[in-house]
Amino acid sequence: MQRQDIKRAGSTTRARVTTVADGKSRAREDVLATEEPLEIRVNGHSVAVTMRTPGHDFELAAGFLFTEGAVTSRDQIAQIRYCADPQNYNIVTVDLRPGVAFDTARMTRHVFTSSSCGICGKASLDQVRVTCPAVLVPPPPLSADFYLKLPAALQSEQALFEKTGGLHATALFDTAGKLVMLREDVGRHNAMDKLIGARFLQNQLPASNQVVLVSGRASFELVQKAVIAGIPVLASVGAPSSLAVDLAREFGMRLIGFLRDGRYNIYCP
Amino acid sequence: MQRQDIKRAGSTTRARVTTVADGKSRAREDVLATEEPLEIRVNGHSVAVTMRTPGHDFELAAGFLFTEGAVTSRDQIAQIRYCADPQNYNIVTVDLRPGVAFDTARMTRHVFTSSSCGICGKASLDQVRVTCPAVLVPPPPLSADFYLKLPAALQSEQALFEKTGGLHATALFDTAGKLVMLREDVGRHNAMDKLIGARFLQNQLPASNQVVLVSGRASFELVQKAVIAGIPVLASVGAPSSLAVDLAREFGMRLIGFLRDGRYNIYCP
Repeated sequence: MQRQDIKRAGSTTRARVTTVADGKSRAREDVLATEEPLEIRVNGHSVAVTMRTPGHDFELAAGFLFTEGAVTSRDQIAQIRYCADPQNYNIVTVDLRPGVAFDTARMTRHVFTSSSCGICGKASLDQVRVTCPAVLVPPPPLSADFYLKLPAALQSEQALFEKTGGLHATALFDTAGKLVMLREDVGRHNAMDKLIGARFLQNQLPASNQVVLVSGRASFELVQKAVIAGIPVLASVGAPSSLAVDLAREFGMRLIGFLRDGRYNIYCP
Repeated sequence: MQRQDIKRAGSTTRARVTTVADGKSRAREDVLATEEPLEIRVNGHSVAVTMRTPGHDFELAAGFLFTEGAVTSRDQIAQIRYCADPQNYNIVTVDLRPGVAFDTARMTRHVFTSSSCGICGKASLDQVRVTCPAVLVPPPPLSADFYLKLPAALQSEQALFEKTGGLHATALFDTAGKLVMLREDVGRHNAMDKLIGARFLQNQLPASNQVVLVSGRASFELVQKAVIAGIPVLASVGAPSSLAVDLAREFGMRLIGFLRDGRYNIYCP
């Protein structure tokens, strides 16, 4: 392979575009959400590649490894760095402290082997139960007014979406409705991993008295990540899937869906 | 692992839900998009697990393997079947004909090894160029009116979305604007793989005189899959990413974005 240094990309990219509306075409400049692959390595071994929006890459790597059960505490990580030779901002390496075992079996959904068998809904649910560091605390009591204000709070902070119309967001709120942190990405799992990774690196997990809001739909994997971060309430602007509801119910998470236009559905109380 | 037969799940799942609106709560029955993991095996070897909506599983497996470059023609596949012992509708096995080489190197984005290096934008683009069976034919001339009618045509056929509000759709149109095929899934890549897999199994590829419409955003991977299927025009209801535009430009694909509310943007002509 040819040696080639990869330049650091920004989170948005300019492009020329032609807009067609009302029977007219006009050329203009547009702003796109940047999408670039990120390879995550642990102690030099490649464990995953994800298509992500550059920015908060170390938090993404940490959040991914934590929500996959590969690491369980901040102390286990010695350092996180970009690949230096050749310089490559699309490869992040996480070096674990000496003596920290890296359990590749936990990464089976990403490192596929020929012997895996029975990776079914049941098996995945079992895996999460093992990975989950603690049972969730009971969800705090929150008013309808609390929930109904979240989407506007998220939207007002979605800087990249505002520019590009092309990003998912994940936001963490306290029980007073104050936005604690927001992360954006072309991939919804990445937005969640960036947020959880940031809280993990700050030693702020489990987030037992907080609420997470996702701009899109609630899938099994998003609920799984929130469970592992100890977040007792997940709200989504879009619909939940069947497996998301099953998993939330199993862990006693409150799951809210279709939170928009002044209404919402409670799938798990 | 305990022997356990996995029942066949439907594409939708019923659930009890509480709707909160206008200061009132009311319990009702809701319909969710089913999400279940699907493990894809080739000649008995596990190559990927994807969270998908059950239905068109064989087409999903075929489309995944074709768009990943693992198979290039219908003839290479001897049979596609569910795992029978134990009965498991979440595992699909693709048996290749004797003598057909299965190139695991092509699956590197899914089967991660410790030696992979430089999986960066450039490397991925190179990989697609190799995988792509032919250059795309020039996009057919199509009127603004043609494009503006596509979203309504897609929406009127989205049966599962209508019920659940929680699915992505991919639709194939001919140049007269007639909907040729539509597939839905909780995962947007799966919806595309199901559609391409169906056309692949019917020996209907490359789809050189057709247009594909996706209900969400246009990512690198969706453009990549359309390129491999030989589809010269990709339109998306949502925004494209930077890498989606780069890839479309490189292959001479016409890329349309934000196709909704009577307007659209042309990112690549």
